[in-house]
Amino acid sequence: MDTKTLCDGILDGQRRALSKAITLVESARADHRVQAAALLEALKAAQASPREALRIGLSGTPGVGKSTFIESFGMALVREGLKVAVLAVDPSSARSGGSILGDKTRMELLSREAGAFIRPSPSQTELGGVARRTREAVALCEAAGFDVVLIETVGVGQSETVVSEMSDLFVLLLAPAGGDELQGVKRGIMEMADLILVNKADGDLKAAANRTRADYAAALRLLRKRPQDPDGFPKALAISALQEDGLAQAWAEMGTLADWRRAQGHWARTRANQNRHWFMEELRLALLAQLTQAGPVRDAVARLGDSVASGTTTPALAVQSALALLHPAVHRAQDGPTPQHDGPKNDDFTTGIG
Amino acid sequence: MDTKTLCDGILDGQRRALSKAITLVESARADHRVQAAALLEALKAAQASPREALRIGLSGTPGVGKSTFIESFGMALVREGLKVAVLAVDPSSARSGGSILGDKTRMELLSREAGAFIRPSPSQTELGGVARRTREAVALCEAAGFDVVLIETVGVGQSETVVSEMSDLFVLLLAPAGGDELQGVKRGIMEMADLILVNKADGDLKAAANRTRADYAAALRLLRKRPQDPDGFPKALAISALQEDGLAQAWAEMGTLADWRRAQGHWARTRANQNRHWFMEELRLALLAQLTQAGPVRDAVARLGDSVASGTTTPALAVQSALALLHPAVHRAQDGPTPQHDGPKNDDFTTGIG
Repeated sequence: MDTKTLCDGILDGQRRALSKAITLVESARADHRVQAAALLEALKAAQASPREALRIGLSGTPGVGKSTFIESFGMALVREGLKVAVLAVDPSSARSGGSILGDKTRMELLSREAGAFIRPSPSQTELGGVARRTREAVALCEAAGFDVVLIETVGVGQSETVVSEMSDLFVLLLAPAGGDELQGVKRGIMEMADLILVNKADGDLKAAANRTRADYAAALRLLRKRPQDPDGFPKALAISALQEDGLAQAWAEMGTLADWRRAQGHWARTRANQNRHWFMEELRLALLAQLTQAGPVRDAVARLGDSVASGTTTPALAVQSALALLHPAVHRAQDGPTPQHDGPKNDDFTTGIG
Repeated sequence: MDTKTLCDGILDGQRRALSKAITLVESARADHRVQAAALLEALKAAQASPREALRIGLSGTPGVGKSTFIESFGMALVREGLKVAVLAVDPSSARSGGSILGDKTRMELLSREAGAFIRPSPSQTELGGVARRTREAVALCEAAGFDVVLIETVGVGQSETVVSEMSDLFVLLLAPAGGDELQGVKRGIMEMADLILVNKADGDLKAAANRTRADYAAALRLLRKRPQDPDGFPKALAISALQEDGLAQAWAEMGTLADWRRAQGHWARTRANQNRHWFMEELRLALLAQLTQAGPVRDAVARLGDSVASGTTTPALAVQSALALLHPAVHRAQDGPTPQHDGPKNDDFTTGIG
């Protein structure tokens, strides 16, 4: 599909176009990156006021009932007439394998709904790459008219941080704990949470879930108050995804928080900072990718590496040579008195690829 | 000092020139990087057959007596007529502060020797930067005619890996352990070691040191044999740095290992691989440094970041624009049918900055 067809299809809410576009943004190929950038820009240009979904980051260790929660919570939203997309950030999925096949089967009801869209994590182990692709998939889902985008992560390494940096709200799903242990949740993760949901508040575990909720509520009160929180937030609730208990309240709390942040200007400021953050992250990845992607740069760098290995040149000088190869304009500018570029003019940077 | 004066002074073994040159390679300023690269290249060009020191990486957690070991071992080498340089890789030194002032005072005798040179760790928290500077300082010490370069690290984070990747031999210094506990030494660190020295084999701790040595010897035998090891290596010895016991044997074992590796070709192969590794690492650092160093690139990238934050453009397109700014030649080459660069010609890469 060409960029125009994809763009029109997505704006029309067509699932096939959305799926194809997500596959495009998941590709690391240089020409695909160029097309992906053009598509995202075209989608933005085509919308007078851009569609915005509520982006909800969701984390929780395996066994807390995350799939059940997404299924129940997603179905509740669909019944309210909302369109729900589910994306996953799982840097380990290439290795574990299971979750790629499992994502749809473990949300059987939701995956059959016309108003729901479930996309497994891109199969790549490198967190930086997964993050970029997921972030762009979120933007595609927003353009396709989804009202809520759930971004799920397994609690592995830095993935919570990555997800919180592309979300409007961050929800931490926890299981009832025995006694007063706080399940070894790292302080840094606690500090990201806007809402802690203690799941499995049903049957034998109901009392334990309520106790655990109270423990976390107390722990949250000890954290430093953040400017983006109205009184009473961050908050801990006990829910049962299995019995669909407390989901309506959880949704209401999310709405309260989102409305307050919009009214106070935090929403727009956070999104602006997130966009700037992702631009810098992607630029770093793109710069480093040149060294490993097939092409004249990689070949020249490999030849320099051979010279260094054989002792013909020093690493320091080879680096200078490689930089001069990569950035002839910039290096000439440093040498001479008047900085000049023979690349695109400054005025072009924000309007086109040049 | 200009590059020629520094070069001549170092080759003449002058400490002042060596110190100045190390300060130069420790600088991150772009013009200093250019001069550092020129100096390292000039030193190489001036030597018909380059001087090579035995580079010994040394790690050990605080309290194992590392300073005492370096003092005793260094003095023993100096008494044999060898010139000894001591460098440190301590990514935490900027924070702890103490070790910068402490490096010389804790090796009081060695620091007074004409045949010894002690240089504290560069005061920077970023391991990548510290690593490059130390590696280049090693090259300077070799050119200045030192026979042995001891590269010391505190066991923090990845610093052992960094040091082992710039050493010919890696020595792990350990303290006597109670019973059969192996002091929680990580398997990865064990696998790097060519020689384990259990220190403090004196007085009350002598028996414990010998038991610990036997435990480590047994543990080393369980590791997979590496191609770069002759029979019997890696090896564990008990020593007393305080009583100068076992230091001669440790030095003899290092010599045996180094001679075998030279004869078998492992020495040259390891150095070639290390040089290639450092070239790639430095190139990655240099590419990313452009984004934060003052200059036209950083300013243009900041403007793109503003456009992204304000929603004028998407991160993906801004990345394409930034790459086009950074690499006009490469980007034009990708568009057209015949790849062409207007930067330096391929033939220039190994001979000059271009």
